[in-house]
Amino acid sequence: MLFEAVKVKDALNILKENLRSIPVRSKEVPLLESLNRVLAEDIYSPEDIPPFDRSTVDGYAVIARDTFGAGESLPAILKVVAEIKMGERPGVALKPGEAAKISTGGMLPEGSDAVVMLEYTHPFEDGTLVVERPVAPGENVILKGEDVKKGSLVLPKGHTLRPQDLAVLAGMGLQKVKVAISPKVAVISTGDEVKPPGSELRDGEIRDMNSFSLAGLVLKWGGVPVIYGVVRDDFNDIRKAVFKALDETDLVIISGGSSIGTRDLTVKVIESLGKPGVLAHGLAVKPGKPTILGAVEGKPVVGLPGHPVSAMVIFELVVRPIISWFLGRPENYGRIKVKAKIARNISSAAGREDFIRVKLEERHGELWAIPVLGKSGIISTMVESHGLARIPSEKLGVKEGEYIEVELY
Amino acid sequence: MLFEAVKVKDALNILKENLRSIPVRSKEVPLLESLNRVLAEDIYSPEDIPPFDRSTVDGYAVIARDTFGAGESLPAILKVVAEIKMGERPGVALKPGEAAKISTGGMLPEGSDAVVMLEYTHPFEDGTLVVERPVAPGENVILKGEDVKKGSLVLPKGHTLRPQDLAVLAGMGLQKVKVAISPKVAVISTGDEVKPPGSELRDGEIRDMNSFSLAGLVLKWGGVPVIYGVVRDDFNDIRKAVFKALDETDLVIISGGSSIGTRDLTVKVIESLGKPGVLAHGLAVKPGKPTILGAVEGKPVVGLPGHPVSAMVIFELVVRPIISWFLGRPENYGRIKVKAKIARNISSAAGREDFIRVKLEERHGELWAIPVLGKSGIISTMVESHGLARIPSEKLGVKEGEYIEVELY
Repeated sequence: MLFEAVKVKDALNILKENLRSIPVRSKEVPLLESLNRVLAEDIYSPEDIPPFDRSTVDGYAVIARDTFGAGESLPAILKVVAEIKMGERPGVALKPGEAAKISTGGMLPEGSDAVVMLEYTHPFEDGTLVVERPVAPGENVILKGEDVKKGSLVLPKGHTLRPQDLAVLAGMGLQKVKVAISPKVAVISTGDEVKPPGSELRDGEIRDMNSFSLAGLVLKWGGVPVIYGVVRDDFNDIRKAVFKALDETDLVIISGGSSIGTRDLTVKVIESLGKPGVLAHGLAVKPGKPTILGAVEGKPVVGLPGHPVSAMVIFELVVRPIISWFLGRPENYGRIKVKAKIARNISSAAGREDFIRVKLEERHGELWAIPVLGKSGIISTMVESHGLARIPSEKLGVKEGEYIEVELY
Repeated sequence: MLFEAVKVKDALNILKENLRSIPVRSKEVPLLESLNRVLAEDIYSPEDIPPFDRSTVDGYAVIARDTFGAGESLPAILKVVAEIKMGERPGVALKPGEAAKISTGGMLPEGSDAVVMLEYTHPFEDGTLVVERPVAPGENVILKGEDVKKGSLVLPKGHTLRPQDLAVLAGMGLQKVKVAISPKVAVISTGDEVKPPGSELRDGEIRDMNSFSLAGLVLKWGGVPVIYGVVRDDFNDIRKAVFKALDETDLVIISGGSSIGTRDLTVKVIESLGKPGVLAHGLAVKPGKPTILGAVEGKPVVGLPGHPVSAMVIFELVVRPIISWFLGRPENYGRIKVKAKIARNISSAAGREDFIRVKLEERHGELWAIPVLGKSGIISTMVESHGLARIPSEKLGVKEGEYIEVELY
């Protein structure tokens, strides 16, 4: 167990080593349901796309060399021998000096290797075609297999499917695809003063916010949240909830417990439930230091800080990668980073990674990151900001105008 | 009707003028289901968050001025008169010289205005508290309403809800929220050579890809896709499908018809179904010029080019804003743009907006956009690229190393 505040990366590595190997569970879903899901298999194309040489314009299929040197003053003269119907195999094969009328998407007849656009031709009643421009072999044609080659790896396992990916899968004739099953993530809130949103508050009580931001983040990053509600700060109550959650879900997150007493409770509960128990207690991160990473019988349990901003920041740093392990996708999936100039000096302790909520603003064509200051208990700072600027652990701060990396929400 | 190729913006404006005013239809959903949906009402907070002055640390609630000037050599000496229980109203009011033990999240007792952290205090058995550091009024406290003020506008109508927004809504006690109803978007593919994914292909036939990329984009941008399948290139067949779709959905998109004949069919169908009919035919955009915008009895109908890349590009430029109208959200919602240096010269025609598929790559700390070349019929170029670089209509191209704007997929 790491008692000293450790780097996020080190804590995740220790956790990974202590988990039961995570096999990506998968199921087949219809194409349209696979959007935003993670491929659980490599996809090789069973066929060529397109399956034949295909015209990309309206015009005449020709043999390119018949048009070499053609111009307005000395056009090529060809003979139209057929009109190609859409969706059908051409009935002819072109011989030198011949052409066939073709529409966009039509199949090139045997012998032809290019298409002259309609606007550079003059057809005559007797079948003579005047071509005023040369075409190169392959011009205005998508060759068989030019889009996707039969047998080629089109999309790798671990890839998250986008609209264009559905198109290419459909193009190959696939109607179903194997995707990773989303891990179930238990969301438990703790705190004697924390009440569910529906309740009337008495003095000293506040409403549970973390269950909703964390369940929202679970959904956003591809998990299925299971909300266990608010549990009192009591060893037996927390233990009962975590025990149930470990049984019913793949990953348990407990938020709350920023007071020393409660943090200790979460540690004791994890330790009491099974081996190896708590693996790291305290991260070298601000906000979010009082984070607990543990594992019980091969399942990860994460104790997030109670302050709502800290809980969200640590979710992004710690829980998001764990969800990615279950999905078999790259840990850094979905991290959209931009570079911006920081709008004021910010100091930071050495050896600690700092995350600053920032608003982005364009000023004279440059992107600026304006820190949104506020305690980590103030959720509205997350509502008003656009992303988190990162001060790496080796830096003692940043100076106004310095470039920093901002990860967008 | 605009017969000349027009700017996307102008075409959208004409369309908007010709639509029945679009009232945003709304319904109430439970908080967790509201993620990624668009607020249909302004949200004002019915209460203060937090509803009382709240400690952010473990320590002692004090009257700040009692600690002014305190140091290790000359500490302040206070008397501990109570321990505040979590989730309860403190039983005491502090008088000068008094302190109360408090945990993170505890309610400050009347009279106190700051909290001294545990580590700067020494408590003695007899109730004496030695304080070795001064605190300023408000230090280590979140004041009542400091996060959200009662009556303040927290989230505006038209805002798309993120995890942190759910948290703040939960914090105010809301369990349901009014969101915009997603518009139904009809997706129709046309083409005699186009077959559904499940079918065996004969020579000259290809599979329908556009239905899937376009339905995927509809989902991505908040609509509900209704796939009508592939319709033959026949006036009556297309008319029947569009007529049905107009009855059953809010917005109709027809893809296919890149050949002149089919494009004319789509125009004729739209004209035949009702007023005002076709409003713009041809956009000053590459790829995607052969686009048709129309309206029938107040409902938008868009004819997208058949080439799969062009269809996706025009969806983003034309259909996405229309979906946003129905949702009542800003047209530019979700456009994530980054600046990058273009990796090679690209020429462009004046008066035409060009969109280049690019891969992004970091080289020596700078972001570069590497054009993925390929005909607009080649969907794999969309699979391999990360976004679209835009060459504005007033430019004749971009030079290698020039900064361009890239919109990420």
